[in-house]
Amino acid sequence: MATQAKLSDYGISVGTLPSGPLGKISDVPGVTVGHCTVDTQTQKTGVTVVMPCADDMFAQKLPAAACVLNGFGKTAGLVQIGELGTLETPIALTNTLNVGLVYDAMVEYMVGRCAQSGTALRSVNPVVAECNDGGLNDIARRAVRQEHVFAAIENARADFEEGDVGAGKGMVCHGLKGGIGSASRIVELDGARYTLGVLALANHGRLEDLCIGGKSVGAKIAAHLESAPEQQQDKGSCIVVMATDLPLCARQLERVVKRASVGLARLGSYIGHGSGEVFLGFSTTNRVPHESARAVLPCTVLHEGRIDAVFRAMGEATEEAVLRAMLCADTVTGFDGSTKYTIRNFISQIY
Amino acid sequence: MATQAKLSDYGISVGTLPSGPLGKISDVPGVTVGHCTVDTQTQKTGVTVVMPCADDMFAQKLPAAACVLNGFGKTAGLVQIGELGTLETPIALTNTLNVGLVYDAMVEYMVGRCAQSGTALRSVNPVVAECNDGGLNDIARRAVRQEHVFAAIENARADFEEGDVGAGKGMVCHGLKGGIGSASRIVELDGARYTLGVLALANHGRLEDLCIGGKSVGAKIAAHLESAPEQQQDKGSCIVVMATDLPLCARQLERVVKRASVGLARLGSYIGHGSGEVFLGFSTTNRVPHESARAVLPCTVLHEGRIDAVFRAMGEATEEAVLRAMLCADTVTGFDGSTKYTIRNFISQIY
Amino acid sequence: MATQAKLSDYGISVGTLPSGPLGKISDVPGVTVGHCTVDTQTQKTGVTVVMPCADDMFAQKLPAAACVLNGFGKTAGLVQIGELGTLETPIALTNTLNVGLVYDAMVEYMVGRCAQSGTALRSVNPVVAECNDGGLNDIARRAVRQEHVFAAIENARADFEEGDVGAGKGMVCHGLKGGIGSASRIVELDGARYTLGVLALANHGRLEDLCIGGKSVGAKIAAHLESAPEQQQDKGSCIVVMATDLPLCARQLERVVKRASVGLARLGSYIGHGSGEVFLGFSTTNRVPHESARAVLPCTVLHEGRIDAVFRAMGEATEEAVLRAMLCADTVTGFDGSTKYTIRNFISQIY
Amino acid sequence: MATQAKLSDYGISVGTLPSGPLGKISDVPGVTVGHCTVDTQTQKTGVTVVMPCADDMFAQKLPAAACVLNGFGKTAGLVQIGELGTLETPIALTNTLNVGLVYDAMVEYMVGRCAQSGTALRSVNPVVAECNDGGLNDIARRAVRQEHVFAAIENARADFEEGDVGAGKGMVCHGLKGGIGSASRIVELDGARYTLGVLALANHGRLEDLCIGGKSVGAKIAAHLESAPEQQQDKGSCIVVMATDLPLCARQLERVVKRASVGLARLGSYIGHGSGEVFLGFSTTNRVPHESARAVLPCTVLHEGRIDAVFRAMGEATEEAVLRAMLCADTVTGFDGSTKYTIRNFISQIY
Repeated sequence: MATQAKLSDYGISVGTLPSGPLGKISDVPGVTVGHCTVDTQTQKTGVTVVMPCADDMFAQKLPAAACVLNGFGKTAGLVQIGELGTLETPIALTNTLNVGLVYDAMVEYMVGRCAQSGTALRSVNPVVAECNDGGLNDIARRAVRQEHVFAAIENARADFEEGDVGAGKGMVCHGLKGGIGSASRIVELDGARYTLGVLALANHGRLEDLCIGGKSVGAKIAAHLESAPEQQQDKGSCIVVMATDLPLCARQLERVVKRASVGLARLGSYIGHGSGEVFLGFSTTNRVPHESARAVLPCTVLHEGRIDAVFRAMGEATEEAVLRAMLCADTVTGFDGSTKYTIRNFISQIY
Repeated sequence: MATQAKLSDYGISVGTLPSGPLGKISDVPGVTVGHCTVDTQTQKTGVTVVMPCADDMFAQKLPAAACVLNGFGKTAGLVQIGELGTLETPIALTNTLNVGLVYDAMVEYMVGRCAQSGTALRSVNPVVAECNDGGLNDIARRAVRQEHVFAAIENARADFEEGDVGAGKGMVCHGLKGGIGSASRIVELDGARYTLGVLALANHGRLEDLCIGGKSVGAKIAAHLESAPEQQQDKGSCIVVMATDLPLCARQLERVVKRASVGLARLGSYIGHGSGEVFLGFSTTNRVPHESARAVLPCTVLHEGRIDAVFRAMGEATEEAVLRAMLCADTVTGFDGSTKYTIRNFISQIY
Repeated sequence: MATQAKLSDYGISVGTLPSGPLGKISDVPGVTVGHCTVDTQTQKTGVTVVMPCADDMFAQKLPAAACVLNGFGKTAGLVQIGELGTLETPIALTNTLNVGLVYDAMVEYMVGRCAQSGTALRSVNPVVAECNDGGLNDIARRAVRQEHVFAAIENARADFEEGDVGAGKGMVCHGLKGGIGSASRIVELDGARYTLGVLALANHGRLEDLCIGGKSVGAKIAAHLESAPEQQQDKGSCIVVMATDLPLCARQLERVVKRASVGLARLGSYIGHGSGEVFLGFSTTNRVPHESARAVLPCTVLHEGRIDAVFRAMGEATEEAVLRAMLCADTVTGFDGSTKYTIRNFISQIY
Repeated sequence: MATQAKLSDYGISVGTLPSGPLGKISDVPGVTVGHCTVDTQTQKTGVTVVMPCADDMFAQKLPAAACVLNGFGKTAGLVQIGELGTLETPIALTNTLNVGLVYDAMVEYMVGRCAQSGTALRSVNPVVAECNDGGLNDIARRAVRQEHVFAAIENARADFEEGDVGAGKGMVCHGLKGGIGSASRIVELDGARYTLGVLALANHGRLEDLCIGGKSVGAKIAAHLESAPEQQQDKGSCIVVMATDLPLCARQLERVVKRASVGLARLGSYIGHGSGEVFLGFSTTNRVPHESARAVLPCTVLHEGRIDAVFRAMGEATEEAVLRAMLCADTVTGFDGSTKYTIRNFISQIY
């Protein structure tokens, strides 16, 4: 993995809370991320998988919640998360038309994973989120297959790559090249340090709306482009995955992930009609056993009066994750010859 | 309090789970109910208050949730319950146009209650639910005043009256006299006994749809009535309040109270357009402190795999509570001379 | 298609509203249903497709809504329906672990369908609902493939089969053989006749809770069975699809499909924890163009004051559809040798 | 009314869409706003009423929707709006503990209003939203009475005052004096001009988070203040009311008002835990009759593909309305001697 761009290289900083050591979602202990990129002349796509833990997540589920800010999207798996408040599989991200095949690959993975534990799996709720990369990728071919999903899972690690990789390969963000970005924040409570991490699949926004650190930079970048970007509407979607080791219940997780909207608005999003904005979050604390001999279980929960720091961490980490997606992505030319440029081409001149 | 009718007097039984000793919501330890009835020539109305505990419920809130099955209703207080998952006041029931004055009385009560604890109250979320008694009560006068609310709170007790009392005075259920009814069920888990109790304000349904114990009895009763009941549409609303000492979080409470719909459907409701059906529930376990020195608190939670027994208890208790509302209510003649008859006039003949 | 059982053969009738000529969802003009059954020694499964119209449903979408009564399920496609209130593909029903492959087949079908109209499809929202047939079907193999989905679409017709066909092959309902059932009701408004039709995939309920026409019949049937049914919990799910030519907007459609709960409760369901109950509805009136030269379009809408008849139709049609699923299904022996019996073996003796 | 501050006086502009002639919610034809301020040594509070039309709004209801971004609030009336998608009363804004009395005054007003039309009102759904002014106002006294509500209605006009008036009297926004602000935007579609207007009751945010036009100004203002503002948490709430003559159905209105979140985030809000952020919207087009002889009614609806301009208008108008609330408000000293300063004291120096 080549050295990746940092916000500080460009004098950008987001918010006031400290980052974790990697500055990624994987600062939350146990969380890893894997990519598999499909990069051919016609295919600019892939799959990215967020692994919430190393052990058996079906047997020991994770408290989870989702918030659909704008539901023009096809994320699968939200019905059960909404009802039961738990996550029992990795979270896969891919292109819009590949949800079905990736879903099936996740089932196959979980059948195998549970067989290792001696369980004959009859029901499982994979979570597959998507953004539309049809601007650069010949999407109707649905290039992401089971082997790519398995490879992404195999590749999962803490120090994963960002930018135009995995599901991020064909993404376009604010008219420039988008992709996968990540960030983390540390929240201290009663002397204990907790981590909140975010991974964004950024594929939304119009160029002229782009703001960085409060400065409106979109129009200036547009002036540098030979041709105006074709994407005049804020469409394309943004998926935000949040992980934390804070002891949050499903109701609290929903409140927290909703604050991803703040990060997107700061960068200039108007939550466009066509932009499916879906936020998912889970906690690695208070795992929920699939089977339990005891009817009543002990757990812990954050006192709601302390949640403001977590909200702030969510907004900051989302804003930073989207910026990193853009900064780490390289210029990509799509199947139809159109090109989306990296913001690095412009950032020094205009920021 | 005169002896009140029992289901068993009429050979009716509901479900298979055992009841608690009183067969009321107050079988849940700490829960009491108070009524104040306004009964004049033109006013057939009142207020009923469910007191969730004897101690300071603002300082130590209760996990709570609501489910709006049909939102043609005016219940106040649900926005905050939905967000925070806690109850911090008694739950008051009254007529539709009295929500404002009862709400204000609840604020006054809480200001006083908190002053006793040395707290200057600046914000509180009263919960006031309502049904429309405008068929028997000259509702536009809004007869329920602060003194009635305070009297209902003062009168609260475990062995409270059912039928045409308090908020139930002017209610009409399935074309007959409705009102307040209650029931309880015992759920055993790991050898421990938990109680789920329900209080219903029953003011819904059409006569011809009424079923008891699966038997369609509405048409037969209609044949005994001199004139067909004027209420040809299923409108009027039903409020169901559930209390339990089971360790349920807000998400689980919402799932449980939703099963009130089963009890109503068994009795013949089609969830009419005009019938505001609102279900509220709280747990007396895992109280949530208003202020906490510690950021992370211990709690307990029911394993979801055991929740079916609780769902069943909810359905059964709701069905029984509505039946008791009808059986305990006496015949009442309204402000405009129309009369709603007690089902006791007919039940022996037709069941 | 062999002659299928009728409710009237057994003296059963549901509700008071008249049925359409076929007594199926296809009484709504344009709606057809196709099945493809996978029936081998180990595979007892399949796919059923509801085709909402004969013309291009992507170009001319249908107003649509969903209601998740109990979200322990994996239905895909609800996020976008909730946001945009439109349906743009057929609705496919299958087994729980086949959602991914059926979803992908639906994408392939739509890519082809749109190519016929000269549209290069880049985004589409397939709707795939599921119930778990893992009791009779070796579900982990995911036997339903693209060719089965295409065959089901090809087979779609108005006078389709009910019972243990298509997605219904491996279903179990109230401990007996379940499957696909359908029913319709006619609603007259201002002299015009409108049709509401329902298709149910019935795979829920406990035997001892089963009621027919208000009579508790489950315990009596259990007494006739050699061995008690293994399914002691109300789990397995029920999907209800509603079609109508009434001019209902998405908000009204959601209110209508919610009343499916009434039909299920009448038959004895307690909405078990494990029973994913998902209701979907669409109107064939007021089609919504994918592209429109005009910003403002005319439409029509039912006055809410008349909606009670539609609610009643929904409850009745759901109850009847589930009963038909059971009555039309034959006895099936599963991959592991266990047998689920048709209710026809018992109904004459006990009803 | 003294001349009020304008954004342009301070070189501030928001967004790119044109404003209506007044730059207020009342640019939407028929919409007026009235205030009544209670301003004594201990009472710094009041009521503001948004009148959606001049004619009988109970007889001819308005399509309406709400979005609860953060439900730590007590807004009454949302249950019915959510179910039926209509508004049938004015919208009143007041302090948190006055919701009950204002609600009752609204009922009294509607009883009288309907009596004029010969209707005996038995049920009505007042909408009362609130923010907490307990920092400046001795809130527990509930100073807003029926006469104040009636006076506000009487005072309603198109060219209403902004700032520390009506419900805005005691509001605090980003640590400075908040209150009532308004803005409008013009959206052109197919050559026709439509108006979207917003009224905000701004009582949220932390000083150090305040951004104007993308510039972080909060810390600089804090440096000018003698003492740091006591409100260190983002709590207090923000109510946003949107009116439009665009033909939007309830589902679309909900999507539009959700975009108020963008305006708040641009100014620096993190949607704090304690900040009840509730957004309400209505359309003056496609009025819905309370009674209708015809079951099916014609209406019009915006094609969803054109809605992006409306979203943008909503974000811009909200941001501008909150800024106007701050710019128009004067410095106010509260019942306990604490003072909240107008941003005008600082804006020239720091912007």
